[in-house]
Amino acid sequence: MTAERSTVQPGDAAAAFPAGVLVVGTGLVGTSVGLALRRVGADVRLRDATPALAREAVSLGAGRLATADDPPASLAVAAVPPEAVGEVVGEILNSGAAEYVTDVASVKALPAARVGEHATDPGRYVGSHPMAGREVSGPAAALPDLFEGRPWVLCPDDGTHQQAVTRALALARMVGAAPITMTADDHDAAVALVSHSPHVVAALVAARFTAVAEQQVRLAGPGVADVTRVAGGDPELWTEILTANAGAVSAVLRGLRGDLDRVLEALETSADDRRNLRDVLRSGVDGRARLPGKHGTAHTEFATLVVVVDDRPGQLAALFADVGTAEVNVEDVRIDHSPGQPVGLVELDVRPGAEDQLGDVLRGRGWTIRG
Amino acid sequence: MTAERSTVQPGDAAAAFPAGVLVVGTGLVGTSVGLALRRVGADVRLRDATPALAREAVSLGAGRLATADDPPASLAVAAVPPEAVGEVVGEILNSGAAEYVTDVASVKALPAARVGEHATDPGRYVGSHPMAGREVSGPAAALPDLFEGRPWVLCPDDGTHQQAVTRALALARMVGAAPITMTADDHDAAVALVSHSPHVVAALVAARFTAVAEQQVRLAGPGVADVTRVAGGDPELWTEILTANAGAVSAVLRGLRGDLDRVLEALETSADDRRNLRDVLRSGVDGRARLPGKHGTAHTEFATLVVVVDDRPGQLAALFADVGTAEVNVEDVRIDHSPGQPVGLVELDVRPGAEDQLGDVLRGRGWTIRG
Repeated sequence: MTAERSTVQPGDAAAAFPAGVLVVGTGLVGTSVGLALRRVGADVRLRDATPALAREAVSLGAGRLATADDPPASLAVAAVPPEAVGEVVGEILNSGAAEYVTDVASVKALPAARVGEHATDPGRYVGSHPMAGREVSGPAAALPDLFEGRPWVLCPDDGTHQQAVTRALALARMVGAAPITMTADDHDAAVALVSHSPHVVAALVAARFTAVAEQQVRLAGPGVADVTRVAGGDPELWTEILTANAGAVSAVLRGLRGDLDRVLEALETSADDRRNLRDVLRSGVDGRARLPGKHGTAHTEFATLVVVVDDRPGQLAALFADVGTAEVNVEDVRIDHSPGQPVGLVELDVRPGAEDQLGDVLRGRGWTIRG
Repeated sequence: MTAERSTVQPGDAAAAFPAGVLVVGTGLVGTSVGLALRRVGADVRLRDATPALAREAVSLGAGRLATADDPPASLAVAAVPPEAVGEVVGEILNSGAAEYVTDVASVKALPAARVGEHATDPGRYVGSHPMAGREVSGPAAALPDLFEGRPWVLCPDDGTHQQAVTRALALARMVGAAPITMTADDHDAAVALVSHSPHVVAALVAARFTAVAEQQVRLAGPGVADVTRVAGGDPELWTEILTANAGAVSAVLRGLRGDLDRVLEALETSADDRRNLRDVLRSGVDGRARLPGKHGTAHTEFATLVVVVDDRPGQLAALFADVGTAEVNVEDVRIDHSPGQPVGLVELDVRPGAEDQLGDVLRGRGWTIRG
């Protein structure tokens, strides 16, 4: 596993990709790759099965249209849906459109298997997954800094040419991402764990609210809002993603279901045997503590100050201006909306020990501190 | 269902509770009730099974020590754990220490049944639940504005005296809360739905992280951090809460397990039959849309601006100062920490239509806007 970042200078891209980069598929991710690579001086050629999309990406500055006369690119990026990766990568390699190819699909084992079926030299392909995205899609939504600071996972296997890895690594670094290398199976298990399964569970919790009385829903507070936040995602897209990673997602959800059954048994059989319930809750605390916090370090417990603010424009500005005078770095911010009330609570997380200093400053400037 | 708020003047409490309020149990909630009532001029008497805790609450200004010579209080607040409510309320009513009693336990059906066993006139009791709390406990953690703007649920039944309801309503209003009336069963079903079950599910997701490789955990982003945020709660306390509301929690989790099984079946049997998977995800979107947003209204889709900020003290202050000049109200704020990177993303939610104005102002002041 590697995670590093270097300062990329204009011109570096020309050295890393002397024959340029071919982007096949100019949706959100492909066009963002083009924009980011153009910023560091790479020669970027664009094509899409829908030519109008490629022309739109060109008009946005993501590169120039690819032509049949282009020499083989140093690297191609197949920015197409998971189920199309095998065919597209095979076509690129077999036609000589590029020397090496990577893709950007959010699952990795399935595309790699399909590439093996379609490409005559699959070792020139290395799968990758930039862990960045937006709620919107299409070239117009592309951003040159979409990948800035985000993990970019590379999944070489025993047959992968070293040069394919080198060029995909260069791509990740050129667009500002932090490359991480793991096997395709490890990747798929990891995203099942950190993204796909939590999405399913958030949807399961949110689905409870479809058929209950309004007065019950009204009691919902910030906790359940957090748990269900990701459940708003597009059901069609998520059906595709979950289906493409069905085995890994199912493995995580089977384990979760086993724990759920232990909880249900503890709740439904004997109130005196709470051990299983307590064990599951303790595992939750332990697991939560392993999640990365700021700076990618393990979750740190911050001290929290809760400030009462009026719901008027400028109140947050006034608050943060006063926070600024305390010279305390705010690690996280949450706004807790009181139902039906013209008042909000702003929770400020700071390093333990800094809360007294910040609290004194804010009280001195007239803010009501709740904790 | 009612939800209202009125301006309480010092002196109003003396009129509402001419013979004062007796608080039994001076932990976080009981002491906070005392502090809030003292602020509006009520006569507050305090006692606790551990006399040192009552003395501590007195020293904090939450009231005076109760004595055996006190006349019956206008209202008593039994601020004791759910399993102790029945006995404590029975003792208060049977001894004549107060004319009417309420409690503050986070479940309501079980305490009401126990009061019926212990009190000779259980109609003088009305259950209630202020939906406010802190991660810390004890009188020293008490706050006079703990209940400010929070829902305070009252659960009268057919046998409840009207005067008990009137006095509990006055209590809720005096401490700044928003009273809501529903049956004990509806309350318990509601908190199972909005709080207890989401807590279990967050723990189930977080528990997956106890036994996986560090490189998998490293890919965790803001989504799973949201889903698991509440899982950090004290396992002992939550075991008590879940056990006291076992029936209602189990009913919610059984429904969730049914949907989970539909998802598992869709993932494990035929990739062609994705209908069940899509249906569950769609229900998640629909349920999420019903959750209250700011001002207790149904969830509104806000427009989101993503601003890139350096991780230095004063950056949030500078950002919000510039936001302030745009005269746009920020509805919500989230900070998205890039793993391993010295840069953060601040997501600002604003009313749809206001994002262009805010984006222009921030760009003009040198901020990088990602979306």
